[in-house]
Amino acid sequence: KRGYKVAIYERRGDMRNEEMSAGRSINLALSDRGLLALEKIGLVDEIKAISIPMHCRYIHNIDGTSVTQPYGKTGQFINSVSRATLNMKLMDLAEANGVVIYFNYKCESIDWKNKTVSFEKIHNANNEKQETRNAKLETINFELLFGSDGAFSAARLQHQLQHEKFNYQQYYIDCGYKELTIFPNADGDFAMEVNALHIWPRKDYMLIALPNLDKTFTCTLFFPFEGELSFSKINTAEKVKDFFAKNFADAIALMPNYIEEFLNNPTSSLVTVKCFPWIREDKFSLIGDAAHAIVPFFGQGMNCGFEDCRILDELIDKHNENWDLILEDYQSLRKPDGDAIADMAVNNFIEMRDKTGNAKFLLQKKIEARLYEKYPEKWIPAYSQVTFSPHIRYSDALKRGQKQESIMQKIMQLENIESIWESEEIELKILESLNN
Amino acid sequence: KRGYKVAIYERRGDMRNEEMSAGRSINLALSDRGLLALEKIGLVDEIKAISIPMHCRYIHNIDGTSVTQPYGKTGQFINSVSRATLNMKLMDLAEANGVVIYFNYKCESIDWKNKTVSFEKIHNANNEKQETRNAKLETINFELLFGSDGAFSAARLQHQLQHEKFNYQQYYIDCGYKELTIFPNADGDFAMEVNALHIWPRKDYMLIALPNLDKTFTCTLFFPFEGELSFSKINTAEKVKDFFAKNFADAIALMPNYIEEFLNNPTSSLVTVKCFPWIREDKFSLIGDAAHAIVPFFGQGMNCGFEDCRILDELIDKHNENWDLILEDYQSLRKPDGDAIADMAVNNFIEMRDKTGNAKFLLQKKIEARLYEKYPEKWIPAYSQVTFSPHIRYSDALKRGQKQESIMQKIMQLENIESIWESEEIELKILESLNN
Repeated sequence: KRGYKVAIYERRGDMRNEEMSAGRSINLALSDRGLLALEKIGLVDEIKAISIPMHCRYIHNIDGTSVTQPYGKTGQFINSVSRATLNMKLMDLAEANGVVIYFNYKCESIDWKNKTVSFEKIHNANNEKQETRNAKLETINFELLFGSDGAFSAARLQHQLQHEKFNYQQYYIDCGYKELTIFPNADGDFAMEVNALHIWPRKDYMLIALPNLDKTFTCTLFFPFEGELSFSKINTAEKVKDFFAKNFADAIALMPNYIEEFLNNPTSSLVTVKCFPWIREDKFSLIGDAAHAIVPFFGQGMNCGFEDCRILDELIDKHNENWDLILEDYQSLRKPDGDAIADMAVNNFIEMRDKTGNAKFLLQKKIEARLYEKYPEKWIPAYSQVTFSPHIRYSDALKRGQKQESIMQKIMQLENIESIWESEEIELKILESLNN
Repeated sequence: KRGYKVAIYERRGDMRNEEMSAGRSINLALSDRGLLALEKIGLVDEIKAISIPMHCRYIHNIDGTSVTQPYGKTGQFINSVSRATLNMKLMDLAEANGVVIYFNYKCESIDWKNKTVSFEKIHNANNEKQETRNAKLETINFELLFGSDGAFSAARLQHQLQHEKFNYQQYYIDCGYKELTIFPNADGDFAMEVNALHIWPRKDYMLIALPNLDKTFTCTLFFPFEGELSFSKINTAEKVKDFFAKNFADAIALMPNYIEEFLNNPTSSLVTVKCFPWIREDKFSLIGDAAHAIVPFFGQGMNCGFEDCRILDELIDKHNENWDLILEDYQSLRKPDGDAIADMAVNNFIEMRDKTGNAKFLLQKKIEARLYEKYPEKWIPAYSQVTFSPHIRYSDALKRGQKQESIMQKIMQLENIESIWESEEIELKILESLNN
């Protein structure tokens, strides 16, 4: 839209024409940061049309009871969107706006001095086992290059290999994930409450489910790789059946293929990547997961990537297309925010799998929600800062959230908190602590 | 000594026969952890014979005054040893004990399934620019392989590339270093106090000097890469001269070649590496810098590597040569200790370059030293725990040190601490805090 000539080189094939390898997707939760970025480029309506609002966490307890926990204030919600549907839509919209996409181009090397990238043209990239390759490289010239190629970024690897002092960190959590499916009910309708993110919190693991437009739910089991209850131990149809019957009794009725899916779908791992620097003068930057891959437990991976774009866009205006200044500022602004959401996302895993099943934790959330309704300027729960307050930087949300959490820790230790949580005394205590 | 057949494959040439590229060495400070390990294998006397005791930090202030700060209690000291001299000695001793060393072998790949390593035989490996290679690979078999090849370990890279979920972190501090030399004085003797580690602390940078057997001192300037005063700005003979005249007036008289050395010696960087896992079943382990590269500011890099060996040796006894158990225990014990000394080493940079020039900090060290003399069981300064208490684990030293530091922070804020630091009141206050 600014008149730049943009080409995208993509390792995979065009998913709009090819069959995808299944079972590796966690549905995305589009929230206010992502929406703000889409709004700025005029795409928000098209993306909202393929999204399903989720107003609350719908918590399935092990005893068969359930409870809901609103995500924010009345009227605030997040949006379930299928990764594949979103990708296809964004590609259509990009092409309609003049972007050219080259598929099956695998980045082999980058020469920053001569500003060229060399690609290997590959076939069947979506099926890694049948991949055949063509040794001939195709070299293209660039003026400005973005490494927007995800957690295992080939551009980042080239950047790192040609960097004398590159700070780099990759951290795998000890859980992996497995995709399962809940099908529509006999009437062809959603088998559970549609406008919710369903969670079966089980302390060391959890199952979640997000709604799709076709009335299925994409379920994801987050589960340890090793240990008593783990992917390495639960490895036969019988063990899977036992394990699910004990832990997810209400869900298995809705998942006719869960045993087969569990045994056949791939087990994927979850990595956090932090690195620095992200840029090279006025000619290169990492962006999105390539700069800051995070785990999915805050629902912020895509939102953070879209926010990168919004900030970059604002800096193009601010610095009048002086790319030296734009990229320098982009990196200084976004690096602390990328680090902050990475840490919050890891912490939120513990909250989701463990604490959402805990009555005291749910009470704490209630107290915070009440404060938020009454004093929306003074007390914004950490989750709301990240999810519904796109103008609060992630790094500020982390700091404010930590302060609020330490206040709430003390409040929750009060002996009779269950009976006095709505009292003025508690309210005053909390608000006073905020000023210390 | 246990009867294993041991071969070492080394990328570099044999430094005992070849001229080394100069200017990249920081002298080593051998202390009690290293000595304990050497003692256990009967090498301590041979290594002590090539070492020079350093009893204190000898601090050169910018105004020309100086002050000494003992490292520990009376009779405790660390030992300056030249990296090259030590390496050559250890190689001689290893060969005398039946170890075979293959030089100019560059590790290209490791096959853990078939237990083979492939090496490229290279020539002139010590001079990277003139290196010529022989494309033919030589493949050897192993029963048990140790990746003991340093911060930029080729074995670790192979391990990482063939690992699905490898946690990895490399972190460069924003300072690099440059080697300079202090020559003997006109009488052919040491130009400064020999039994000390000399420091010129200048807040954002520092110069240090360690004595050598040939009566020179190896000096190292730790200096920012970027900024007003940095390697990138101080880049002409005139600027170097000005900078040294202002900051190291007493040293330049002893360093006739400092301008030339500053401009011609390489600028090296300082990296911390953390990773996990270190091992593969009963057949592979990382050890030393390859497992946990640390910055040199605690003088613990070599000591930590030698301690790895001591612990491994004890585990061989404990598990009766069951290598599955030995390596598993070795990793569980050493990983938290490697992490702890890595963090302490980065923190000590700030202490050395900044705080050793600060009167209040020196008073704090005096108070702690006094407590240590009076109550050696209750209060061991963090530095002494790491340096002179080889039976305290690094991870415990970090925790105890943090607790003590927070106590001392409060004590040092007392208004008249300068006049009452030797009082019984202060002593009691500190000892009581220890019990909280």
